[in-house]
Amino acid sequence: MKVVLVGSGNVATHLALALHAIGNTIAQVWSRNQSHASKLADKVNAKAISNLSEADLSADFCVVSIKDDAVGEVAELLRGFKGIVVHTSGSVDIAVFAGVFERYGVLYPLQTFSIDKPVDFSNIPMCIEASDADTLNAVGQFANKLSTNVREISSEKRRVLHLAAVFACNFTNYLYTLSNDLLNENDLDFNIIRPLILETAAKVQEAYPKDVQTGPAIRNDEQTLNKHKAMLTAQPELLAIYQTLSDSIKKTKK
Amino acid sequence: MKVVLVGSGNVATHLALALHAIGNTIAQVWSRNQSHASKLADKVNAKAISNLSEADLSADFCVVSIKDDAVGEVAELLRGFKGIVVHTSGSVDIAVFAGVFERYGVLYPLQTFSIDKPVDFSNIPMCIEASDADTLNAVGQFANKLSTNVREISSEKRRVLHLAAVFACNFTNYLYTLSNDLLNENDLDFNIIRPLILETAAKVQEAYPKDVQTGPAIRNDEQTLNKHKAMLTAQPELLAIYQTLSDSIKKTKK
Repeated sequence: MKVVLVGSGNVATHLALALHAIGNTIAQVWSRNQSHASKLADKVNAKAISNLSEADLSADFCVVSIKDDAVGEVAELLRGFKGIVVHTSGSVDIAVFAGVFERYGVLYPLQTFSIDKPVDFSNIPMCIEASDADTLNAVGQFANKLSTNVREISSEKRRVLHLAAVFACNFTNYLYTLSNDLLNENDLDFNIIRPLILETAAKVQEAYPKDVQTGPAIRNDEQTLNKHKAMLTAQPELLAIYQTLSDSIKKTKK
Repeated sequence: MKVVLVGSGNVATHLALALHAIGNTIAQVWSRNQSHASKLADKVNAKAISNLSEADLSADFCVVSIKDDAVGEVAELLRGFKGIVVHTSGSVDIAVFAGVFERYGVLYPLQTFSIDKPVDFSNIPMCIEASDADTLNAVGQFANKLSTNVREISSEKRRVLHLAAVFACNFTNYLYTLSNDLLNENDLDFNIIRPLILETAAKVQEAYPKDVQTGPAIRNDEQTLNKHKAMLTAQPELLAIYQTLSDSIKKTKK
């Protein structure tokens, strides 16, 4: 397949590398910033462009992987694209492309990407959606070459999925940060807590999180909860997070 | 070593299994509830007792692995124990044993345990502390047979560690639960988000969480934040958690 890639961020980069690795031709990489486009284009043997008027409208796929609020505006600049246009966003409705392209869809990889960490796509859930049955079929085949875990998900459900991912990934990572800060302030190394973090995630690969909740809040261990709150009095923001989450956990008690 | 085990919960169970597996003799298992004591005792070839007056005071180690607020009271009932008494709690000061025993300490495994999931102790950070240098040495040797990751940690730092663990493990697992609830309410399967959860934890095994934070809050993507908040209006508790954590993440923006 001949692919035009619009974007050069975390998702765009890893998708480009994976699509290139399985034999697709990345014809062009666009980024508003020419040096970003060049950096990624060089890795996948593509041409870097920074003006969408240069986009090759005859490619098979155009993958739009940019900030959510820019998708609509960029689509207008790609008007006339003859192949299938997909975006990769969790929370942008497929309707953003309606009336702009004939064949379009969504290819949302439900995973967290960082520029420097290699990604194995084979098990990543690829949530797909398309303008029509034929296009859905084509997007499905395209996604299937990347992952064995392809699912048709409507825009409405994809929005829920994205929100659930914010809780399970973004907020979780932030709690790791708060934990790291607490350790650093007390000359303790983050290394000491890394095995716990990994096991916490590993546990729910088989079990449901509700069934493996541990800690003072679920035990209603007021003595420990009070000790912890006393330790956080000088950090009102941390204290508020501790209180909010502990109170909420207590309510789930079976 | 001959060990008396006081407790039959998650930590007590996994410690007993691990201590037994590496060749220690678990002489007795105590639990207030005789059937709990018997269930664990059977697994490690020990005698179940439900009255601490029956405890074998001549054993080498007594491992007290019970609810935090019961440690002091149970210690009184073990007065006269000739070997080394350790508790396994994250937030109970070593001083709880002062004046009760001659040789005592702490053996805190920094990990999350569930009854049914087998545990590999070899990499679990074992935080130790003791009444004196000789006892520290003995507790260290005892811990070293379980794990290659043994560290001397004061009661004060252990308290911080425990608090950091609440953020990194207990609160994190609760966010998985909220995520699972959101999915279920919309007929989506928790399976779809499991790879994301695992990768989120895997990412910070090498990196620091602050350097790999993703999501709408860190990007200051107000459009997506507002969409998410609109989706949560019927769930004020979830909305409060979303708001509290997102606001806090925004403040960390570099």
